[in-house]
Amino acid sequence: MRPLKVAVLGCGSVGSQVVRLLTEQAGDLAARVGAPVELAGVAVRRLDAPREVDVPQALLTTDALALARRDDVDVVVEVIGGIEPARSLILAALESGASVVTANKALLAEDGATLFEAAEKAGRDLYYEAAVAGAIPILRPLRESLAGDRVTKVMGIVNGTTNYILDKMDTHGSGFDEALAEAQELGYAEADPTADVEGFDAAAKAAILASLAFHSRVTANDVHREGISDVTAADVASAKAMGSVVKLLAIAELRAVPGGDEAVSARVHPVMIPRSHPLASVREAFNAVFVESEAAGELMFYGRGAGGAPTASAVLGDLVTVARNRIQDTTGAGESAYADRQVLPMGETITRYHVSLDVADKAGVLAAVATAFAEHDVSIQTVRQEGRDADAQLVVVSHQATDAQLAATVEVLRGMDIVRDVTSVMRVEGEL
Amino acid sequence: MRPLKVAVLGCGSVGSQVVRLLTEQAGDLAARVGAPVELAGVAVRRLDAPREVDVPQALLTTDALALARRDDVDVVVEVIGGIEPARSLILAALESGASVVTANKALLAEDGATLFEAAEKAGRDLYYEAAVAGAIPILRPLRESLAGDRVTKVMGIVNGTTNYILDKMDTHGSGFDEALAEAQELGYAEADPTADVEGFDAAAKAAILASLAFHSRVTANDVHREGISDVTAADVASAKAMGSVVKLLAIAELRAVPGGDEAVSARVHPVMIPRSHPLASVREAFNAVFVESEAAGELMFYGRGAGGAPTASAVLGDLVTVARNRIQDTTGAGESAYADRQVLPMGETITRYHVSLDVADKAGVLAAVATAFAEHDVSIQTVRQEGRDADAQLVVVSHQATDAQLAATVEVLRGMDIVRDVTSVMRVEGEL
Repeated sequence: MRPLKVAVLGCGSVGSQVVRLLTEQAGDLAARVGAPVELAGVAVRRLDAPREVDVPQALLTTDALALARRDDVDVVVEVIGGIEPARSLILAALESGASVVTANKALLAEDGATLFEAAEKAGRDLYYEAAVAGAIPILRPLRESLAGDRVTKVMGIVNGTTNYILDKMDTHGSGFDEALAEAQELGYAEADPTADVEGFDAAAKAAILASLAFHSRVTANDVHREGISDVTAADVASAKAMGSVVKLLAIAELRAVPGGDEAVSARVHPVMIPRSHPLASVREAFNAVFVESEAAGELMFYGRGAGGAPTASAVLGDLVTVARNRIQDTTGAGESAYADRQVLPMGETITRYHVSLDVADKAGVLAAVATAFAEHDVSIQTVRQEGRDADAQLVVVSHQATDAQLAATVEVLRGMDIVRDVTSVMRVEGEL
Repeated sequence: MRPLKVAVLGCGSVGSQVVRLLTEQAGDLAARVGAPVELAGVAVRRLDAPREVDVPQALLTTDALALARRDDVDVVVEVIGGIEPARSLILAALESGASVVTANKALLAEDGATLFEAAEKAGRDLYYEAAVAGAIPILRPLRESLAGDRVTKVMGIVNGTTNYILDKMDTHGSGFDEALAEAQELGYAEADPTADVEGFDAAAKAAILASLAFHSRVTANDVHREGISDVTAADVASAKAMGSVVKLLAIAELRAVPGGDEAVSARVHPVMIPRSHPLASVREAFNAVFVESEAAGELMFYGRGAGGAPTASAVLGDLVTVARNRIQDTTGAGESAYADRQVLPMGETITRYHVSLDVADKAGVLAAVATAFAEHDVSIQTVRQEGRDADAQLVVVSHQATDAQLAATVEVLRGMDIVRDVTSVMRVEGEL
């Protein structure tokens, strides 16, 4: 059997682990693929840069495009990241007849359709398990294991940096800035943490999860996005008092809309979930994805969402499948967007709010607050009154309503004389 | 595109849900497979038996063999269970050119090799995700997602009945008999609970997990099996005192053996694990499988391990893959047993013990017990002495040793004058 040739584009923390595994596991890979798997070349920015792995000089090149186009290459692994040149390289590889494995969430979430169409046209595979939740097998289960079921909701802790920060805020009572500084010191957060803490990274993953779960095209732009930089120690303390914890969740959900249709809600924002929820116990920088499906019920997938070796594990898993397909001269299932569902604006998304208010301690406060909710057709699940005098607090948990109704209610509360301060507003998932 | 025809053998709780989903999700299945999926027939024991689902009379037959052999059938779903006639039916289906999806753990664990060889010879698929942990996608992740990685250990709560019983013993302090009776009342345990409580069901699943994880043939007979009927309220209380919980685990592990080789340890027995371990929080009848892999690190898969609809979800996921393969005239990866690793006898398996002893409260007791461990080359991690006089207790947690060394140590302890009773012996996983 002729060897399958693999080109790796990028040799950073993921690429170098891909190269290491390709070399160290060569025997096992050959047995599992059914043919030897050979490293054809590694595209790097600088030939003399220090690397985590030894690559024979003869395999290194700075000409990524030429490597992606080499006609003896069967599979191209793209682990450069970002939009360009990654997109051009993937398109060139597919056009030249290679299958592609990528970990590029940003590109898939922004312009997946272009890539999928190119793969379809070329009759080649485009696999991307590593793009969401690193080592955790979640895309393949959604694409294949649950292909005979009806997924109704996906909720994921898909960003380790923000989970680490929120976990520290929860366990140590620290504020956001302090927890971020600690995460940066330990290498869990980057010097410019925007992509993580503002939810851009999670939004890209939410788009990919929503697309797969609901067989529709959802891009990062369709995803409502709120980060965690506004989450305060008071929010976390409020959650604690409710037996809950604050997590940044990527949520993709199927929602009935008038006319009997179903639309997709795709969003990333901080959420208060009860500590009994399986996602609540996901600590530190771990990731987990919780799936609700009609027949399967509740499922959860847990593991390391980032890091060179875990991400490389996912890349290699795809590589084995794609290589097997090349040998059999076939391809796996391509893009599945037949359901073509609309994406709901955030305002029309059904959710629930937890609101904490500093209020004047006088008769009629509760009635006034309750009226504000009622006037927006939002019904209240529980109200708890705490403290007295200058410390009087009202904690309200609403029943389900549209996000627009809930947001409008909070706006009215903010303007009320008897409300001294709205100390915490947080969406709620699960039964508090 | 001509429709793909599916025969379902068995119409019990799983079969009827398979039929329901095939009917209700017909539109989605057609879109996901790429061709309509049609129910060709359902084999039942009695035509007039009451069923959870309406099947058109014309599709029912009591001649399962004729249905499995029908040459217009593309995929046969076997959900009868047990060894025979299931094996003959699956072999007949493969010989007749159908691909097979089965949920039959007992058959796969006893005689998987015969089935895999028949599938290979016929050039057809044999898929069986539903055989282990019901709805939880675990076999596909092991077969495919982790195919480029090196799995070193799999630990699973793969039997809901025993997890329910142990969970009740832990939360309510009840004894085994009481918890079993409650499980039977609620339908979590059968009238004859042997297959579950004695670990036969879990052992079959351990064999399947070990085979896939380590690319070797492991049968149910190779799996060391201990059930939970000897787990006492004292064991559970002992675990609690250590911040631990008792779970029945199916464990498949790679172990270095002299000569540089690696062997497989496959076993089912009660285990004490710390409450901080992800498996410890798996409650009620839920299942979960914990995987340790060299590059991916720790992964966990959680969900419903039994029940008609969850199991049917796994069957349908396989059905979609197998049907797609039929259309593309290809097959997925078949059996992978190239590594051909030996299975270690339990005595040679490295493990750790937790031992509680009622002892005479006199000078020299601790020294005598410590000597018993030392004489078997077992080193002690911690000893805790509790109570005084008639209530004196010694709790010992060992370091790693072979199971034979540990068992021999316990035998000696049982014979010692100063040991009034060995109240609890339990293997340990994770850092207590």
